[in-house]
Amino acid sequence: MSVPMAPIITAFERSPDGGKGLARDMRVRWALEEVGQSYEVRLVSFGAMKEPAHRALHPFGQIPTYEEGDLALFESGAIVFHIAERHAGLLPDDANARARAITWMFAALNTVEPPILDLQTTKLLERDKSWYEQRLPVVEDRIRDRLGELSDYLGDADWLDGAFSAGDLMMVAVLLRLKASGMLDEYPKLSAYVARGEARPAYKRAFDAQLAVFTGKSPTG
Amino acid sequence: MSVPMAPIITAFERSPDGGKGLARDMRVRWALEEVGQSYEVRLVSFGAMKEPAHRALHPFGQIPTYEEGDLALFESGAIVFHIAERHAGLLPDDANARARAITWMFAALNTVEPPILDLQTTKLLERDKSWYEQRLPVVEDRIRDRLGELSDYLGDADWLDGAFSAGDLMMVAVLLRLKASGMLDEYPKLSAYVARGEARPAYKRAFDAQLAVFTGKSPTG
Repeated sequence: MSVPMAPIITAFERSPDGGKGLARDMRVRWALEEVGQSYEVRLVSFGAMKEPAHRALHPFGQIPTYEEGDLALFESGAIVFHIAERHAGLLPDDANARARAITWMFAALNTVEPPILDLQTTKLLERDKSWYEQRLPVVEDRIRDRLGELSDYLGDADWLDGAFSAGDLMMVAVLLRLKASGMLDEYPKLSAYVARGEARPAYKRAFDAQLAVFTGKSPTG
Repeated sequence: MSVPMAPIITAFERSPDGGKGLARDMRVRWALEEVGQSYEVRLVSFGAMKEPAHRALHPFGQIPTYEEGDLALFESGAIVFHIAERHAGLLPDDANARARAITWMFAALNTVEPPILDLQTTKLLERDKSWYEQRLPVVEDRIRDRLGELSDYLGDADWLDGAFSAGDLMMVAVLLRLKASGMLDEYPKLSAYVARGEARPAYKRAFDAQLAVFTGKSPTG
């Protein structure tokens, strides 16, 4: 009996976050853990990411990628969606609820993440610029606009639209990028929401697996 | 015989681009035209976008939204994907090709659009700041990195992965936001790619329809 090969994902050999689980492979690991699909990881160095062999998998020279037989994908959103379509557990069965869960995936990636990316890029690449100190609060306020709206929408609900879905997975993963900034604490409903995500056993398994790349320890031992 | 109601989308009553087709309703209009689905448009003022009635449809107080019977969606990516799933013409039948087309939708929205949004935000909100002139080329160079990679990937192909798909629709729509900047002209393969998108009859119908909001003329007369 032939056993289907486990999909292979790529991750940073040395993630810039030092194992805090903020690199985009974490989203894919988390989705795979949620649906109970084992996977293999190929670690890629910063240099190798920009070489033709990796660019053939990812035209923008980034991680993660996803290989499954003949299929090769990139973009964490697309990979998580692919996993969610092929397995039960990350998208509702009801057609309308499914479309709404997918909407939250796109909202996380195209409405909430861009200002957060801007903050990270600013901190990473503009720290030595003359305008850094003045511009930082401008960038942060743009994020606050989004966080306030998201918090108002979420209200006292556990998840964005009924049961936990790929939309929540992506939104929590995006919001986690703000944790070190302290901005999330200004929105107690959102920090509780993120904490609910982090408390999921699948999240913890995925987190331990990405951390093990740094500690060199097996996540289970 | 009951005829299914046409979906209703929202668009700016007065788009900030003055009818250049850069607002995100254009992507939805284009998708609907590609699949031959008629639709209705409800125009929303800037004030009304932030009111509870519209926020019930779009938690971030933006356009477009999409209403179809009991279903209400927001996020242009999610709406275009919903249209592409329900109709033939925007996603390939082959499962792997379909997953790759979806990958390009996410790549357009989460990898290519964020630096372009940063440029637009910079031009719109930071023009009077002391750092504007110095920071602008930094932002533009980040876009050039992505454009160069995308151009290398596209090469001499007409579309990103075989036949025209929702991935191309989204990528062309995102790249069009750069047209006025002249940056697209630095990448002849990409400007030809965008021109192929604009030459599609469905694009032209969608463009004329959004322009008619400004001219007050019916797009067909």
